[in-house]
Amino acid sequence: MIAPGAGASGEDALIARYFKPLATDPGAFNLGDDAAILKALGEDIVVTTDALVEGVHFLSNDPPGTVAQKALRVNLSDLAAKGAAPAGFVLTLALRAADDAWLEPFARGLGADASRFGCPLLGGDTVSTPGPLMISITAFGRVAPGQMVHRSGARPGDRVVVTGTIGDAALGLDILRGGRVAAALAGDAAAREMLVDRYRVPQPRNVLAHAVRDHAHAAMDVSDGLAGDLAKLCAASGVSAVIDVPGIPLSAAAAAALKAGAVGMEVLLSGGDDYEILCAIPEDGFEPFARAADVAGVAVSSIGTVIAAASPPKFLDAQGRDIPLRRLSYSHF
Amino acid sequence: MIAPGAGASGEDALIARYFKPLATDPGAFNLGDDAAILKALGEDIVVTTDALVEGVHFLSNDPPGTVAQKALRVNLSDLAAKGAAPAGFVLTLALRAADDAWLEPFARGLGADASRFGCPLLGGDTVSTPGPLMISITAFGRVAPGQMVHRSGARPGDRVVVTGTIGDAALGLDILRGGRVAAALAGDAAAREMLVDRYRVPQPRNVLAHAVRDHAHAAMDVSDGLAGDLAKLCAASGVSAVIDVPGIPLSAAAAAALKAGAVGMEVLLSGGDDYEILCAIPEDGFEPFARAADVAGVAVSSIGTVIAAASPPKFLDAQGRDIPLRRLSYSHF
Repeated sequence: MIAPGAGASGEDALIARYFKPLATDPGAFNLGDDAAILKALGEDIVVTTDALVEGVHFLSNDPPGTVAQKALRVNLSDLAAKGAAPAGFVLTLALRAADDAWLEPFARGLGADASRFGCPLLGGDTVSTPGPLMISITAFGRVAPGQMVHRSGARPGDRVVVTGTIGDAALGLDILRGGRVAAALAGDAAAREMLVDRYRVPQPRNVLAHAVRDHAHAAMDVSDGLAGDLAKLCAASGVSAVIDVPGIPLSAAAAAALKAGAVGMEVLLSGGDDYEILCAIPEDGFEPFARAADVAGVAVSSIGTVIAAASPPKFLDAQGRDIPLRRLSYSHF
Repeated sequence: MIAPGAGASGEDALIARYFKPLATDPGAFNLGDDAAILKALGEDIVVTTDALVEGVHFLSNDPPGTVAQKALRVNLSDLAAKGAAPAGFVLTLALRAADDAWLEPFARGLGADASRFGCPLLGGDTVSTPGPLMISITAFGRVAPGQMVHRSGARPGDRVVVTGTIGDAALGLDILRGGRVAAALAGDAAAREMLVDRYRVPQPRNVLAHAVRDHAHAAMDVSDGLAGDLAKLCAASGVSAVIDVPGIPLSAAAAAALKAGAVGMEVLLSGGDDYEILCAIPEDGFEPFARAADVAGVAVSSIGTVIAAASPPKFLDAQGRDIPLRRLSYSHF
């Protein structure tokens, strides 16, 4: 829709209507310019980017509000794991049509999270596509100069620590696809709902960013499966790890699905979409880290130990036997 | 393709092979971490984001190298118009498959431009899509604090100035689609090639960024058509403008297509994809601006005057008569 002579287009109207209210930072210039300004305030700017594609990272019938939340939160999760405080984000939205029934709840969900996490919209681009919806977000954080937490700092003797619970999102996706988990939990609607919610709305651990920065030798968020992401952290650090699989934190729902035989441990370890923090913490840092997590209301679990070796991490069962993993993580290609 | 036990995936291999060589900035950490660091160096960080969708912003059979160049250059063009020096970019790439025959020239084109414009790859995300290819880039620039050039600073009496020539890219697209311009220029292969090149490979005016910053009251790049973009600049500045259409710089090829009746002036003014700088420069700034442009080897043309009015800009022919424009610019929706 072009308004002749007005200089306004459907695209501009869409942006003004749905996204201008989210551009609360002065550096966004009310989305009325071609670029935004991000002030570093004497800190390092941490930059991360993650995209969601309809049918790949979310389902066509997922509620638009949760799609928006997931798109922002997967980026916030990276900032948290790097020890950075959110500073803002830019959004690229590829749409088949300007559908108000989708855009309104999408923008509402996005705005609620932008406000909740103190991460305002700074700018963006809205384009048309004949294909699946795609949401690409680049998010910015601030961290004291040189203090970003890397994948590469883990040292032998460090504890391997994860936040929250592992594997829930993979089970939630299985439920949405009508898989075996849905049948196994047929009698427990609350459990099914919790797992689906874990798939649709990650809980990024931004409240722990400071503690990660202060205590972790290395950290990353678990997005592609705990097993594969731990392997990446170890490879980047030039170390290995031994993981006590019974010590990996599972939700009651995941434990029930596991017990019922609806899913194997391997799926929980490689499923992806957990968006928990995986980090290597030296022995004397674990106590204060756990205390900070307790204050923040986030569960943390020590699940193993970093060792000096070049081999991939080992996952051991209750009897100390190797659990072979055929698949470590999700890969797009 | 997942390499069991190795912690490496096809996605990681693709990134290592094609994109790691482009990550020359220390803040990119060789693409081996979850985020990049951008140092502000005491300046403001300018952030801009623009995406290209296959079949919408480029054609399926466009050479992958030029697609990469266009994806980066449309963002560089925004930085130039804002008076900022390039600092780096992040890339989101949505692919149907990891096709080496496409990725190799894409990465080569991208790397050549990253190097040419001093804008290194800082990070990115590679995702699979069942739909059209999509390339989303967020680019960063640096500008002295508070010195970013806005859309909103134009004042009555300023000259309206554009760089380069207008309308070429729209004609290039018409040629690629086998439209009337191809027939009108059937005897001039060089002209057709130049126009196609202008569509595929924009020439962002980053060499003029300093001059824009020093002399322009307001600026933006012309991406959606001169007429519409001027209307936006005027609206943001609370002014209007009178444009002398015969003074709008056209390439010889565009002038020939116009003369042959293959295209109307309206298409040249609203076609989009020019990626020239449109700016408002006070009378006493024009001479030094033109001198800087001359040194940089970029043509600049004074095409009109900013006036105090609330009406849309007027486009006048050689006789001073209004040229009515039914369509001002390209809109996605």
